[in-house]
Amino acid sequence: MMTIRVTVWNEYRHEKQNELVASIYPEGIHNAIGNYLKTNEPVEVRTATLDEPDHGLTDEVLASTDVLIWWGHIAHDEVRDDIVEKVRDRVVSDGMGLIVLHSGHASKLFERLLGTKTGTLKWRDDGERERVWVIEHGHPIAEGLGDYFEIPKEEMYGERFEIPAPDELVFISWFEGGEVFRSGCCYRRGKGKLFYFRPGHETFPIYHQPEVLKVIGNAVRWAAPIAGAATRSGRMEPIEPIGKN
Amino acid sequence: MMTIRVTVWNEYRHEKQNELVASIYPEGIHNAIGNYLKTNEPVEVRTATLDEPDHGLTDEVLASTDVLIWWGHIAHDEVRDDIVEKVRDRVVSDGMGLIVLHSGHASKLFERLLGTKTGTLKWRDDGERERVWVIEHGHPIAEGLGDYFEIPKEEMYGERFEIPAPDELVFISWFEGGEVFRSGCCYRRGKGKLFYFRPGHETFPIYHQPEVLKVIGNAVRWAAPIAGAATRSGRMEPIEPIGKN
Amino acid sequence: MMTIRVTVWNEYRHEKQNELVASIYPEGIHNAIGNYLKTNEPVEVRTATLDEPDHGLTDEVLASTDVLIWWGHIAHDEVRDDIVEKVRDRVVSDGMGLIVLHSGHASKLFERLLGTKTGTLKWRDDGERERVWVIEHGHPIAEGLGDYFEIPKEEMYGERFEIPAPDELVFISWFEGGEVFRSGCCYRRGKGKLFYFRPGHETFPIYHQPEVLKVIGNAVRWAAPIAGAATRSGRMEPIEPIGKN
Amino acid sequence: MMTIRVTVWNEYRHEKQNELVASIYPEGIHNAIGNYLKTNEPVEVRTATLDEPDHGLTDEVLASTDVLIWWGHIAHDEVRDDIVEKVRDRVVSDGMGLIVLHSGHASKLFERLLGTKTGTLKWRDDGERERVWVIEHGHPIAEGLGDYFEIPKEEMYGERFEIPAPDELVFISWFEGGEVFRSGCCYRRGKGKLFYFRPGHETFPIYHQPEVLKVIGNAVRWAAPIAGAATRSGRMEPIEPIGKN
Repeated sequence: MMTIRVTVWNEYRHEKQNELVASIYPEGIHNAIGNYLKTNEPVEVRTATLDEPDHGLTDEVLASTDVLIWWGHIAHDEVRDDIVEKVRDRVVSDGMGLIVLHSGHASKLFERLLGTKTGTLKWRDDGERERVWVIEHGHPIAEGLGDYFEIPKEEMYGERFEIPAPDELVFISWFEGGEVFRSGCCYRRGKGKLFYFRPGHETFPIYHQPEVLKVIGNAVRWAAPIAGAATRSGRMEPIEPIGKN
Repeated sequence: MMTIRVTVWNEYRHEKQNELVASIYPEGIHNAIGNYLKTNEPVEVRTATLDEPDHGLTDEVLASTDVLIWWGHIAHDEVRDDIVEKVRDRVVSDGMGLIVLHSGHASKLFERLLGTKTGTLKWRDDGERERVWVIEHGHPIAEGLGDYFEIPKEEMYGERFEIPAPDELVFISWFEGGEVFRSGCCYRRGKGKLFYFRPGHETFPIYHQPEVLKVIGNAVRWAAPIAGAATRSGRMEPIEPIGKN
Repeated sequence: MMTIRVTVWNEYRHEKQNELVASIYPEGIHNAIGNYLKTNEPVEVRTATLDEPDHGLTDEVLASTDVLIWWGHIAHDEVRDDIVEKVRDRVVSDGMGLIVLHSGHASKLFERLLGTKTGTLKWRDDGERERVWVIEHGHPIAEGLGDYFEIPKEEMYGERFEIPAPDELVFISWFEGGEVFRSGCCYRRGKGKLFYFRPGHETFPIYHQPEVLKVIGNAVRWAAPIAGAATRSGRMEPIEPIGKN
Repeated sequence: MMTIRVTVWNEYRHEKQNELVASIYPEGIHNAIGNYLKTNEPVEVRTATLDEPDHGLTDEVLASTDVLIWWGHIAHDEVRDDIVEKVRDRVVSDGMGLIVLHSGHASKLFERLLGTKTGTLKWRDDGERERVWVIEHGHPIAEGLGDYFEIPKEEMYGERFEIPAPDELVFISWFEGGEVFRSGCCYRRGKGKLFYFRPGHETFPIYHQPEVLKVIGNAVRWAAPIAGAATRSGRMEPIEPIGKN
């Protein structure tokens, strides 16, 4: 398998502003995820964050990224529209994979790619038990799991989640407080693949949990671009003669 | 059946600038479609055009529109972003139906709702034969048709069309010059339904052809909003006790 | 709206063999459902049961049924294969609607139409709380509901449920014991529509609960056949000349 | 990449009964395909044919097959039902990949896995031009192709094809005689993946054409089983306490 070039993007504000979050993720959420991937998957990892120039997503970085992982929460509005468009173009036209995590559901990027009001859902950050059930046991993103895995303390997200019906629904979550959620959603958008994965509130050590990291690693391999077919667009001459019959 | 309140939106530029188009649609494409619907379907019809204030799509008009039909071509860029957002909100949050016709595939509105680069396809306006085949014979939008219908002279659109895979694919077109196209595509987006229907180049009398008009009438009934379920969003108290087990 | 001709099919064994079930459904599950529909929906209702000749599903009954509702549990194997094939043909070729309830997931008919091993799931009949969440709030089958409805005591079904991914997923259930389940699943199969609805264990008064009955009523209207398009099959002469270019 | 164990199944009657077919496929269609795969893909290839004991599909053969390729035409009825069930079980429960070619659409196996009347379509064996268009350019099965490829002389298949809407539609064919067809259809059924690929009439040298063989090779890699998640079924003890709240 070829090396997959992963860029982990993190808003990286909570970690600098909130001691609890800093204590859980001393190097930031991006490095928690990136360090796991480096050790466990056939990848090269870079990170990028909101407050870097161009949010760390220069043309050069994007052009050499196979799979982009996205975590944001309190500063979605500060992400520049032109960069959202560039990322979207890389996914749709070039087939870059995209993995959107947790509160990234309300990001400009996710909403831009899906078209619905993806910020709309139920939530509660009381720290309750989540049980993530496997729905598609033959899916590569579920590889290595059993029936389900549990997260001891999590933020709840509940339906109705305002997304287009996923092309493949890999996980559904059960919450202690009584809700359910479509927690693992696959989409094809143009040449690219998009995976939304729900777990991940910043005040809990979600991205240190082995099952969560395993799923992200599986998703990186699933989302990696393939060569595909070389299709063209624009005005075309007829292939067959017109107007003869 | 209750009366469906339809607004037919037309860019309405070709008809004022091009004699050929004016001779085919002396009252504009919007009225050709609107007049058919008034006579043949359980609807009230209004029209709206680009050069009216707010493009004719005031809050009041949108709030009293059940199904919006959209035709545009040479002035997509002149459509105001805030109005695109308002229309999108009416579809996703309130369930207004939307029917996008022909070159409307490249409109801001269609791309905003679907997320991909929907302007990307092959085309050729040489006036060739199109044969629109029924793929889903049990679909209400195909009601009253046979195996296919033909359009004697049309602009060709060819694949790869850069859309998300439709939730339901109702029609596929065969073109004399050798291409195929997904010509009738259904999407659910939030509470609303969206239908893309390919036929309709302005220099041919497409919207006078009975089968084309019948499909648009069928689509109006299909896209009409329903009451649905009253779901909420935002922070929620737990339904079940947390932390006891 | 035209009258929909509904046939409610029930295995009708538990009610005759088990006093508890008989006390809940003294006229049988079929009549509990049928009586509700007669009073609340634009339908004509007939019933049919396993031990009638041809299981009550003669050619004449099938030919005059628009929507068939199916409940079975302990005698799936006694359903004749030739009748399964006739029902399947009515759905696929003629567009008869089919609503399969609860333990009907393991029926020959459901497995025949879906192709996977639909009997495979997790279950537990301890009588626990089920909360049925609305996933598609714009779907006619969810009409009139809120975020969810609860069933106080139910048999649990849990994922992985061995079905093809539904064309539309309307409900997901949360169970007190910790599981989730895709509880409202829509399929198009040929000209016909198929809805699987999970609630309904015979030892609980499920089919007396208003929300459950409302969903079944909604589903009857959704599944009713439409005229659609008149397509043909078999050997066809070419429409366009062959071999000239 | 691990070696994929492929079994190419062929009815193998035309080649023995018809001189024209024998001259095109002197070693049978199964060997034409198998020889290509052996040379070009990371596979081990076995073949199996209708007239061998158990149609060559013993428990041992099936248990050591990762991907099964199926070609049949005039003797679908002679395939034993118990073997159809065994193959279906291998796909759904164990994740064996299945590639069904051309006239295999009317096989017991394909109909059993899909549930609809898959033999229903239009056809004409006059030997006309087919142009297979790529619809999903980011799909691994389309890898290495351009916009389309042409087959100079083929049997036509036309819509309405009586299949469930495919999970992914990779190809649509244009026919010289005026029809269209969904020619590359992906399905997930249980743990397994199923690909239907249209080209392949026995009286034309279809399985010697490089693009056709390349697609079959791509499909073998796509359909190869993955480990997935280890899910269980049957009666389960509650994970959370019941009846306390």
